[in-house]
Amino acid sequence: MDEFELIQKYFAGSSGPGVVTGIGDDGAVLQPRSGRELVAVVDTLVADTHFPAGTDPYDIAFRAVAVNLSDVAAMAATPRWMTLALTLPEARAEWLERFAAGMRAAATPYELVLVGGDTTSGETLVITVQIIADVPAGQAVTRAGARPGDQVYVSGHVGDAAGGLELIKAGSQEGHLAGRFLRPDARVVLGQALQGLATAAIDISDGLYADLGKLLAASGAGAVIELSDLPLSPALQQQFDADVCRRFALSGGDDYELCFTLPAASDVPDCGTRVTRIGEVVAGTGIECRLQGSLVDYRDSGYLHFQ
Amino acid sequence: MDEFELIQKYFAGSSGPGVVTGIGDDGAVLQPRSGRELVAVVDTLVADTHFPAGTDPYDIAFRAVAVNLSDVAAMAATPRWMTLALTLPEARAEWLERFAAGMRAAATPYELVLVGGDTTSGETLVITVQIIADVPAGQAVTRAGARPGDQVYVSGHVGDAAGGLELIKAGSQEGHLAGRFLRPDARVVLGQALQGLATAAIDISDGLYADLGKLLAASGAGAVIELSDLPLSPALQQQFDADVCRRFALSGGDDYELCFTLPAASDVPDCGTRVTRIGEVVAGTGIECRLQGSLVDYRDSGYLHFQ
Repeated sequence: MDEFELIQKYFAGSSGPGVVTGIGDDGAVLQPRSGRELVAVVDTLVADTHFPAGTDPYDIAFRAVAVNLSDVAAMAATPRWMTLALTLPEARAEWLERFAAGMRAAATPYELVLVGGDTTSGETLVITVQIIADVPAGQAVTRAGARPGDQVYVSGHVGDAAGGLELIKAGSQEGHLAGRFLRPDARVVLGQALQGLATAAIDISDGLYADLGKLLAASGAGAVIELSDLPLSPALQQQFDADVCRRFALSGGDDYELCFTLPAASDVPDCGTRVTRIGEVVAGTGIECRLQGSLVDYRDSGYLHFQ
Repeated sequence: MDEFELIQKYFAGSSGPGVVTGIGDDGAVLQPRSGRELVAVVDTLVADTHFPAGTDPYDIAFRAVAVNLSDVAAMAATPRWMTLALTLPEARAEWLERFAAGMRAAATPYELVLVGGDTTSGETLVITVQIIADVPAGQAVTRAGARPGDQVYVSGHVGDAAGGLELIKAGSQEGHLAGRFLRPDARVVLGQALQGLATAAIDISDGLYADLGKLLAASGAGAVIELSDLPLSPALQQQFDADVCRRFALSGGDDYELCFTLPAASDVPDCGTRVTRIGEVVAGTGIECRLQGSLVDYRDSGYLHFQ
């Protein structure tokens, strides 16, 4: 089967809202909605760097889409169209079927349509997904708008993905925590609810501490956070002791929750996603951590490539 | 240097037309032009698959952008914004500087702005570029509109890149032919001139024979082409005998010229790019090759991954 047939077979079905010409030409032709700006995000997953070798291709694909959806959510945008660049050591039908099924599972709830792609052969499995999203003009939420007095929030539970990765490394792909690493649930609906409300937002890919640090650096501010307010899941607390849970929550990464700031007087958006206040933006730089009010020294730089 | 600093240092400067928020946030915020549709293209280059290991990073980057610009040109669109996903075995400053310079050289003539990216570590060098272009609504040229009686054209010279690759493999990166492989000149201006004029277009990446074949398959038509009309460069004809030249021209790939069809009565667009009529669209399927009028049997399937 040649490259063209391969793409046609497993990644077909590229019709959907705003798609004039989908997969199969030199480019996709897309109809933007009036009054909207575009938001473009791109993220790459590399075998052995971003997921363990031997991960189910369904989960790899689900994750490749979800991490991009998470970036879309952090911009308060609505996902619309997706492209896939897939570099593969070999093209096996069974593997591609599972991979395509995982992509569909991640994309379908958001009417996100695959409109183009490129399949190449290479020694390492590399997946790059790009999503084009849109947002009412002027309503995108960046990292740069947090001001002293704003309250710092985080969605869902943090630390689960790091706990899950520990369990996967120890040989268990089953259970709630492993699932939170393998099939992260991007906070797209919450992200849209933050339009015109949040002053800044970021998604948690490198760890809450590192990602909140980036938000604060972009905003030119600091924050004080209370570690006992970190939303830890019962599943995490059952598997690991309190110190380890906090470390996973702050530095584990891969949670794909949103960390965002709201003006002090704002109501918290009510869209069915759990949201927890964990601190406050202050003048200055960096993050001060407190545990039940007492200052604690916490050091971390999150997950970095080439460090 | 961490990933964030790396991207900031070498791929900064993401302001330009329509860029509301560029590199450095979770996504780029972009302002589409009214009355236009978007065209999204994506192409991946893998070391040792798409270019010889040890190629100057300037040329790798130039080529990664040019092959995408060529897809944009084949859709008759105007390139606007670009993202880069770069998977690297190691991050060396000198390499990245050359790579960034090559990207800029390819993008700047078209006011194409890098608005986002992701840098990851992996054993194999993999470069995925995506370009978001635009085109007046309804004016994109696809592969599907060629009709019997239309004339078949090709831009520039074909076969040079294949000849250049032969010389590079033999150890010489210098000279006109090697340059045509390493730094292809995407036909962006010609592509725009085809708006509302061409009935179908495709860019030549897999070889004229294979790519014209795809155009014809999408259009539900066949073609007769005259091999003695193939535009061969003096440099190619000086290096290789006539049969080899024709084989390179038909099957060599990597030329990144445009092959397109015009109604019989149409004027050829005059935009400073050489354009040669090589045949005619006919009813039926497939490509009939003639050499000074006599039927010749030519077989080729072009360059295919996983064949």
